[in-house]
Amino acid sequence: MSGKVRARDLDIPFEGTPGRWNAITDVPGVRVGHTTLIRDGKSDASDAVRTGVTVVVPKPRTEQEAVFAGWFRLNGYGELTGTAWIDEAGLLDGPVVTTNTHSVGVAHAAIAAYAHGRRLGEERWSLPVVGETWDGYLNDLWGDNVTSQHVLSALAEAQDGPVAEGSVGGGTGTIAYEFKAGIGTASRKVSSASDYTLGVLVQSNQGRREQLQIAGVPVGREFAEDRTKEPDSGSIIGIVATDAPLLPHQLKRLARRCALGLARSGSVSGHGSGDLFLAFSTANDGQVEGPKERRLAALPEDALNPFFAAVVSGLDESVINSLVAAETMSGLHHRRAVALPHDRLRSVLKRHGRLG
Amino acid sequence: MSGKVRARDLDIPFEGTPGRWNAITDVPGVRVGHTTLIRDGKSDASDAVRTGVTVVVPKPRTEQEAVFAGWFRLNGYGELTGTAWIDEAGLLDGPVVTTNTHSVGVAHAAIAAYAHGRRLGEERWSLPVVGETWDGYLNDLWGDNVTSQHVLSALAEAQDGPVAEGSVGGGTGTIAYEFKAGIGTASRKVSSASDYTLGVLVQSNQGRREQLQIAGVPVGREFAEDRTKEPDSGSIIGIVATDAPLLPHQLKRLARRCALGLARSGSVSGHGSGDLFLAFSTANDGQVEGPKERRLAALPEDALNPFFAAVVSGLDESVINSLVAAETMSGLHHRRAVALPHDRLRSVLKRHGRLG
Amino acid sequence: MSGKVRARDLDIPFEGTPGRWNAITDVPGVRVGHTTLIRDGKSDASDAVRTGVTVVVPKPRTEQEAVFAGWFRLNGYGELTGTAWIDEAGLLDGPVVTTNTHSVGVAHAAIAAYAHGRRLGEERWSLPVVGETWDGYLNDLWGDNVTSQHVLSALAEAQDGPVAEGSVGGGTGTIAYEFKAGIGTASRKVSSASDYTLGVLVQSNQGRREQLQIAGVPVGREFAEDRTKEPDSGSIIGIVATDAPLLPHQLKRLARRCALGLARSGSVSGHGSGDLFLAFSTANDGQVEGPKERRLAALPEDALNPFFAAVVSGLDESVINSLVAAETMSGLHHRRAVALPHDRLRSVLKRHGRLG
Amino acid sequence: MSGKVRARDLDIPFEGTPGRWNAITDVPGVRVGHTTLIRDGKSDASDAVRTGVTVVVPKPRTEQEAVFAGWFRLNGYGELTGTAWIDEAGLLDGPVVTTNTHSVGVAHAAIAAYAHGRRLGEERWSLPVVGETWDGYLNDLWGDNVTSQHVLSALAEAQDGPVAEGSVGGGTGTIAYEFKAGIGTASRKVSSASDYTLGVLVQSNQGRREQLQIAGVPVGREFAEDRTKEPDSGSIIGIVATDAPLLPHQLKRLARRCALGLARSGSVSGHGSGDLFLAFSTANDGQVEGPKERRLAALPEDALNPFFAAVVSGLDESVINSLVAAETMSGLHHRRAVALPHDRLRSVLKRHGRLG
Repeated sequence: MSGKVRARDLDIPFEGTPGRWNAITDVPGVRVGHTTLIRDGKSDASDAVRTGVTVVVPKPRTEQEAVFAGWFRLNGYGELTGTAWIDEAGLLDGPVVTTNTHSVGVAHAAIAAYAHGRRLGEERWSLPVVGETWDGYLNDLWGDNVTSQHVLSALAEAQDGPVAEGSVGGGTGTIAYEFKAGIGTASRKVSSASDYTLGVLVQSNQGRREQLQIAGVPVGREFAEDRTKEPDSGSIIGIVATDAPLLPHQLKRLARRCALGLARSGSVSGHGSGDLFLAFSTANDGQVEGPKERRLAALPEDALNPFFAAVVSGLDESVINSLVAAETMSGLHHRRAVALPHDRLRSVLKRHGRLG
Repeated sequence: MSGKVRARDLDIPFEGTPGRWNAITDVPGVRVGHTTLIRDGKSDASDAVRTGVTVVVPKPRTEQEAVFAGWFRLNGYGELTGTAWIDEAGLLDGPVVTTNTHSVGVAHAAIAAYAHGRRLGEERWSLPVVGETWDGYLNDLWGDNVTSQHVLSALAEAQDGPVAEGSVGGGTGTIAYEFKAGIGTASRKVSSASDYTLGVLVQSNQGRREQLQIAGVPVGREFAEDRTKEPDSGSIIGIVATDAPLLPHQLKRLARRCALGLARSGSVSGHGSGDLFLAFSTANDGQVEGPKERRLAALPEDALNPFFAAVVSGLDESVINSLVAAETMSGLHHRRAVALPHDRLRSVLKRHGRLG
Repeated sequence: MSGKVRARDLDIPFEGTPGRWNAITDVPGVRVGHTTLIRDGKSDASDAVRTGVTVVVPKPRTEQEAVFAGWFRLNGYGELTGTAWIDEAGLLDGPVVTTNTHSVGVAHAAIAAYAHGRRLGEERWSLPVVGETWDGYLNDLWGDNVTSQHVLSALAEAQDGPVAEGSVGGGTGTIAYEFKAGIGTASRKVSSASDYTLGVLVQSNQGRREQLQIAGVPVGREFAEDRTKEPDSGSIIGIVATDAPLLPHQLKRLARRCALGLARSGSVSGHGSGDLFLAFSTANDGQVEGPKERRLAALPEDALNPFFAAVVSGLDESVINSLVAAETMSGLHHRRAVALPHDRLRSVLKRHGRLG
Repeated sequence: MSGKVRARDLDIPFEGTPGRWNAITDVPGVRVGHTTLIRDGKSDASDAVRTGVTVVVPKPRTEQEAVFAGWFRLNGYGELTGTAWIDEAGLLDGPVVTTNTHSVGVAHAAIAAYAHGRRLGEERWSLPVVGETWDGYLNDLWGDNVTSQHVLSALAEAQDGPVAEGSVGGGTGTIAYEFKAGIGTASRKVSSASDYTLGVLVQSNQGRREQLQIAGVPVGREFAEDRTKEPDSGSIIGIVATDAPLLPHQLKRLARRCALGLARSGSVSGHGSGDLFLAFSTANDGQVEGPKERRLAALPEDALNPFFAAVVSGLDESVINSLVAAETMSGLHHRRAVALPHDRLRSVLKRHGRLG
């Protein structure tokens, strides 16, 4: 964070009331860690490294506990491992990792080994959850630059409080709407049956310039220059966390609303994108597994509307935050992705009567 | 029932221990009602009626309460209304009706009207759950013979205790493995985290003669005569009930095991079949809906294996019970579906060392 | 149509180029028919009828031919019958009917009988596709006002060319964003591997006033008066047609984009809504069924992006068209749903620099 | 193979007519390769290696071509990467790898790198398909014994013709029904609209001893000694190949029938199993991707029944072949999994009149 400007600082309007950090870490216990890899070598920049790893840890002591979870595939040209299990058991057991497309394997292996070292007996198993977006426009994607140690380092440094955004972690080299993007996050206070918090974190890499809408204004068409890449080769991974006691099928409902949040910035979920969304609840500590009948806290279905609204606006704000935080970056073959210009953006929004 | 022979009476072996009635009604509160329509008119039997309605009521006071539910489509050339809601909310709210393919509409309308009369305010709505199998080999399917009154009558007469099997209710005119079939049921005591009961009811209308296996013995090929119909034009609807406190995603897991139970009698789930399975739990009375956070009872995932075994053998036994109970029937155009011959069946099983 | 103002007449901007009628009927062969029921009786308006039936016929000779189809459930508190079959076979066989929640049964029965009369031999079956939205705010939903004849009449009158919008057919009594809504339609010319047409039709009944966005402008909050109903008790059914040769799994991809189109008018798909979307292709005439290996036309996946964009903007424009066409209506218990005021809307859009 | 006994050599009866090798490689172009890792170190066998990699290559020149595919999750405590893409596009692009649970990561990375070297430009991506079963009873699962080179070696050696079965490749250390198991395969000639071939390959690791049925005979209970492990910690991966021109949604239907085939050997798909099935078609060479409208061959839905039967019996025979081929193995901590005794098995089947 460190004083970085965020979307609300630019008076971009969003619905809802954020938590303290306006971040997924506002959900008590949720931690986020990044490993950011930026390296240059050859003068032709054919080996430029612009990638990394982001880890979202659902619970302080996730080593001992699974949490309820559900996911949704809006478009599947992407990977999120572990989903067969999430669908089956409604459980998420361990950290969620996001990285580049070709580092899924090394991240998977690193988390499996970590699970062994920390927690699991010899005869247990681990089914890591690893998602990805493609960062090969700026990053030497085939260079095997992410190592097991980078994954464990992101995990070790995961913390609560403010979350670094923009060109960090798994979003170091990503591009959305042909602007430099990356990691973004937001949170909402939710008043339903009681008071809860819901947080969102995205690794954004989706969309074409002319599609970009902010606060309903088609701003993308105002920025015709510095376009970067082929249509819709990108993707978005979104993670939703809440401390409300939601059951697995309800978390699927939340994950599905991420699609509506993504639509707000103009994406049509291009055919080559991996737009995958995961939602989990930190409630029901230590109650979701074990040998005996137990008592779970639960919300009824008709308490969910405020959560749906929170997902939609929180996902949207996370995407815009990822754009606002990122700075212009050059990388592989000296290609460049420019930052969304804050002043011009404000001027466009003002012209449309949409500055907050 | 009334003294009718059942599969176990013929010493056909099945795994597991049944409840008192070896019926879905062994799950406390679950009731079953049938309306059976058998009428003859013209001498060419072109208007023969061999159809009806079966109703499974999840709870004594289901008017006030929904139950958790989940479903599975093994093959979808069939109809089970209300599933969009079951998938979304994990809830089943009211009776489950099975009838013939072309009476889905009238049953749907009848249940909607019933819901209005009994329970729902003017601004509430009803999404009835109605399944079907095709009985047009013996029955004048296009004759509009099932009326709203027939549906309400099955509902009014729903009761606990023994359940009539064979050519009754929605199974009046159905045929499985080219033998006369119909309604069948079974139950299992399940010892898991605690002691529970699981019951199954089927409306069986699937399979070709040569596919039929009973207790693992390929008995169908021993009965080459009296074959009836085109391959795989039939279907099966299976309903699973339990008093164990299972969550919606767990009930989906149970419903999926019905496929394994169906495989035991030899079906390959033909392309034209509607093999649809629904599972619900009667636990968590009055807790699944409402305005506030509440406490649910729940079982962990690793308590489910005994339930899976109960579904597989219970579904299989229900299918065999539907065959054993049905008697030879002639109907539309004087076509005939013969009963599975009990003595010859026993003799085939004995030859294969498979009499219990 | 008859001179009715549409969204584009108000200079509301939408992406893409419409076909001749800017209607689903721009897809060659697709026809639409409505039965509109508006009746008044008692002075307390306790029996006011504001409902109807809309039918979309996929092909001129659909009696002989199925078409490829796919569907998507954004939220499942609603009904769309026939989906088990659509999922299984990727086929849609006959007209798609939309009506009110409690007339699903009568419509289902009417279509089954129609299929018999027109086309099917005695041993064939029909699995009608019937969707619904809840119109009980203005309409005496429990009054059994829709009859089989009304359904067949809509079918008989189905035609190509302009499509009546607003308070007609299944949308006669529906309300969206607390304004009077109903049926809306739009179309897009799609240039992909070749030139195609894509059309959309909605029966819109979703959302709360403050959620409404038009052309990205949060117009709902500008209209604080004349609010009508409880939050999110409504739903939307969307139907997408195209003459491009898309396979079933590709049509599912199109159906899923309807969610992104719905998001554009501000809906978060409330928990009690039935937001269900169906897409079909009229291509591959007479090739999708039959006994032998055949040749299908097909588009590759990477030709789909222009279709996705067409679905998103076409669905959005259909929703806005349903609002623009509808006039203020009073009904049950003299309740009233007001029309979206055209002039004030234009003025709000103008203020935001969003008049086309 | 090399003279190894197979299930049919023991006169175990199965339905259908196999192809030349009774193996998945009977489907023209499909190749299979194994890397088998068996190593011993310490005297307490705490580092015993009993694992490996199996690769199924869909087409001779798969580097240039994707194939249509579909998959089914019977139970999801397992991993099959790449499924989001398979669901979305109906395409499989490259080899299918199976290995142990904790080598998914290294296999994923190896295949991504291989795709780069062989075929893909810098800006393309790879979404490898890697499945797993847990072999930690006999194998030091946490030992990182599978390397990238092992994966590439299995790929390099992939060939048509006979397929090695039992304790080879990814099945080196697996156990089914508490007997030593591993890789098994089978094929069927399918006469439908024309003559086709369908092949199956499994990596079998599922079930408890008392569940085992062979040819419908409950043989497991006859072998009370030498039991090995906790209930249902295992899994099965099944791969179905055919040269029939099936579309993605039809291949899903085939994959779903694997559940019925698995049921034949007695599994109830235990809660901790990863029972995942993938089906692909080698037809429509070079037609499934590309820029323009093209012509696909296709079969109608009602040609599928013979394929369903082939999947069910082919999957079953593959499982039994994996048991028949495997020999007794000791491994980690000197634990032992015994081979299914051929003579005693024949004697049990003979007693039940079930020797072919």
